Amino acid sequence: MIKDAELLAKEQREISISEFFEKNRHLLGFDNPAKALLMAVKEFVDNSLDACEEAGILPDIFVSIKKVGEDVFRVTVRDNGPGILKEQVPKVFGKLLYGSKFRGLGTTGKQSRGQQGIGASACILYAQLTTGKPAQIESWVKGKEHYKCALFIDTRTNEPLVEKEEIVENGLEKHGVSITLELKGMYRTVKGPEEYLKETAIANPHAQITFVRPDGTRITFKRGTDKLPVLPKEIKPHPYGIELGTLIKMLKSSSSKTLLSFLTTKFSRLGINAAKEISKMAKVPLSLHPYEITREQAEKLLKAMQSIKLQRPPTDCLSPIGEEEIIKGLKKEYKCDFVTAISRPATIYRAIPFQVEIGLAYTQDLKQDGQIKLIRYANKVPLFYQQGECAIYKAIADTDWRRYGLQHTRGSLPIGPIVLLVHLASVWVPFISEGKQAIASYPEIIKEIKLAANEVGRRLKKYLSGIERKRYKEMRIKVFEKYSNEVVKALSALTNQDEKKVCEIVMHSINERRGEEYGK
Amino acid sequence: MIKDAELLAKEQREISISEFFEKNRHLLGFDNPAKALLMAVKEFVDNSLDACEEAGILPDIFVSIKKVGEDVFRVTVRDNGPGILKEQVPKVFGKLLYGSKFRGLGTTGKQSRGQQGIGASACILYAQLTTGKPAQIESWVKGKEHYKCALFIDTRTNEPLVEKEEIVENGLEKHGVSITLELKGMYRTVKGPEEYLKETAIANPHAQITFVRPDGTRITFKRGTDKLPVLPKEIKPHPYGIELGTLIKMLKSSSSKTLLSFLTTKFSRLGINAAKEISKMAKVPLSLHPYEITREQAEKLLKAMQSIKLQRPPTDCLSPIGEEEIIKGLKKEYKCDFVTAISRPATIYRAIPFQVEIGLAYTQDLKQDGQIKLIRYANKVPLFYQQGECAIYKAIADTDWRRYGLQHTRGSLPIGPIVLLVHLASVWVPFISEGKQAIASYPEIIKEIKLAANEVGRRLKKYLSGIERKRYKEMRIKVFEKYSNEVVKALSALTNQDEKKVCEIVMHSINERRGEEYGK
Repeated sequence: MIKDAELLAKEQREISISEFFEKNRHLLGFDNPAKALLMAVKEFVDNSLDACEEAGILPDIFVSIKKVGEDVFRVTVRDNGPGILKEQVPKVFGKLLYGSKFRGLGTTGKQSRGQQGIGASACILYAQLTTGKPAQIESWVKGKEHYKCALFIDTRTNEPLVEKEEIVENGLEKHGVSITLELKGMYRTVKGPEEYLKETAIANPHAQITFVRPDGTRITFKRGTDKLPVLPKEIKPHPYGIELGTLIKMLKSSSSKTLLSFLTTKFSRLGINAAKEISKMAKVPLSLHPYEITREQAEKLLKAMQSIKLQRPPTDCLSPIGEEEIIKGLKKEYKCDFVTAISRPATIYRAIPFQVEIGLAYTQDLKQDGQIKLIRYANKVPLFYQQGECAIYKAIADTDWRRYGLQHTRGSLPIGPIVLLVHLASVWVPFISEGKQAIASYPEIIKEIKLAANEVGRRLKKYLSGIERKRYKEMRIKVFEKYSNEVVKALSALTNQDEKKVCEIVMHSINERRGEEYGK
Repeated sequence: MIKDAELLAKEQREISISEFFEKNRHLLGFDNPAKALLMAVKEFVDNSLDACEEAGILPDIFVSIKKVGEDVFRVTVRDNGPGILKEQVPKVFGKLLYGSKFRGLGTTGKQSRGQQGIGASACILYAQLTTGKPAQIESWVKGKEHYKCALFIDTRTNEPLVEKEEIVENGLEKHGVSITLELKGMYRTVKGPEEYLKETAIANPHAQITFVRPDGTRITFKRGTDKLPVLPKEIKPHPYGIELGTLIKMLKSSSSKTLLSFLTTKFSRLGINAAKEISKMAKVPLSLHPYEITREQAEKLLKAMQSIKLQRPPTDCLSPIGEEEIIKGLKKEYKCDFVTAISRPATIYRAIPFQVEIGLAYTQDLKQDGQIKLIRYANKVPLFYQQGECAIYKAIADTDWRRYGLQHTRGSLPIGPIVLLVHLASVWVPFISEGKQAIASYPEIIKEIKLAANEVGRRLKKYLSGIERKRYKEMRIKVFEKYSNEVVKALSALTNQDEKKVCEIVMHSINERRGEEYGK
């Protein structure tokens, strides 16, 4: 049928974000059953860790996966976080784009695992789409309430549909959230939920994670430290990273009465002197009301803001794992012959603070002649897919590992029984897609990863040449031992001493050498 | 600051889809200035072609790009489509997820260039973010109105903010839409707007596209045919492609009074007999009201629906380019020595109809010893990025082109002066990301592309061996010519004929042979 403007108008309508993601689920990482099951574990565990951290609680997380149909799994994730108020539960879980993590352009920011307020509700949407079953949610708020509900998402409106609701008194002690979903999935051991939890445990040694596998067996990734990570602080945007549209938006919606107060309160590292300099350069008076400022004036202000010299943004908005904790995490999960870690100082890309950390473990758990095991993290969350597209992989594959004693073809991973943990912490991780599996290759990020890789590489080389030296000495001692009988006889003849005594002296000398080597 | 459930609740809020994409613009393909400028051209041209096609109008599209600042470009796209009613203009352009193209799960579908109702408004959002300027829109509806406005998007609410509005009388003749944006961008000649328009012109030979480059020069991609493509029909979903959640949603919102009428009117290829069979197998009576059907019953119905034998979905929802049009399109833009095309019959993946077409041109415009030029299309829209990830590239690189006379290393593109056009038409193109640049590698899709590639490969081989044969014969004739003097002398002596006459006969004979070869 041929359509004119009026007929076309009749077809036009608004689509809810739920409807959009329902159809475009691959954009959120739900492109196949194995990935879908992994995503369900990942999103809820990430949320649990964030909530515990914000509430200053050492996380205790329970995850179970049970097969309940041919390709249907029941997933439960339970934490000991602060819980969620009963009024908030339906919205937090039953509405896409609702949450506390999203920080708009030009607003304050800090490091967190989640970024968007999409992950958890997307899992619920996927479960409902594939099995038609609601999410079962329980929340305990200390000394307040124990709330239970079964929840669907109305995709036409992107609003929660609560099916059964129950509010029970809660004691003074219990707190946390539990969520159970049934969804179409596939359970994999390689790059599956268990590996995800193991890698999460390494980067979060302050967390204890228990996992019940589909076969009913249970594994606990034990807490490795009782020290909670330092809480990141919120920071304001830095003038160097602002775009014109954002600045205009900030001006129009600002509660400041003058441009002076706007400039000095809404940005980081921008004081009164800088504000005066900007005003002078842009020829825009500081007494203007932000709302009055025109697009043309804003353009001049921006140019000035980005041309004057300002301090770099503060970096206490970041929460690195820490060298000590990386070492603890790696030792906890791998038998290590040698382990080292480095936290680089924080720096910036596009005026956004970030920090790189690398841990290296030489382990008996891996083959001598295989590629190293690279584990990638962004804000302490393991990255599983799209390795080849990721800045971490690119930087590591492009480092010259032959200099550090490893076999290596540039462009791929080096060879050796090594676990290499690389962590990028940032207020805003530049993922290449909403599946959040690979980091975009900003040159500043690549550079920092390479610097850290070179440092652990140098340490590895030292360790490896130590091994080499020992092996050489031991070989020399063995040769000496082999001929010790002849030596003893000859010495005894030459010195006219008793053979037994000479033998004792020679063996003592050999053992002394050995002892030196082994630090006895 | 440590936060309990109540403090956390205070931070929770709803985010608008505009705010989300404002921050996550890379998800829509705006990751760098060059891509952003291309996207602006692409989205509006695609929309124009869709609108013209639906209205049965031969498209006449004007595109201009002008540099107006250091890295700022003014882009205008104007078409002769049916126009947009003044009430609709603000929503169509100033609201993400608004439009006529989005078809939810379990609803009817047909092939179109746009799929989501995001592209155009995302461009406007990007322009406003980077330059702070509104989109300038004009719409002419035949015999009705000429509407002008300047438009922003309020990202907090995802609602249009109309700045200036003007309604003028419109004559009886003029119709179409014009949009002008100013945005941060970078103009590239390789994989840039001009190449995009050229490839669009090839796959849409019924369209005329005029382009004014930033340097002011003008190029017109002329119309190659006056035949409009056949309009695709809307189809209902096929039972084999439905998921449980979708079926439940359809049941709950159905206006049908009985299961029988639901089954027979909401799906394609499902008649009364099939409905009876389904009902019997699932043990769910056909007289039930769809609303009453429980989740468990729906599960049984779905199983039954997907186990009985049904016809494949109809394929008139597709709008292929057509073999003749592909040949016209290629000839129009390349000097071709040989050109061929094939449209495969339509088939399905996950119960979704699709169709593959390939055109091959052997051309003097390309180098003999370079890789072939692969141009990829999805629903007649050229794909520019992520080639390596795309099913089209994978299938072509995995075809054995040596069998067809080309140099080729499996896994990369073959060598030769060849343009290879590959088109996938589908009701639902499975893009790997919202940037819509690469098609997911469903085995059914790969298979169809390979079948088509093999067919054009065979034709190419015939052509190439024809060239080879000619070259061989010509060589033989040349050898004969070389010795013709001696031959003439000898023949003249032997036959006692005049040398001149013998020479004439011999030359005639040679030229006759040549003529045969060149089809004189």
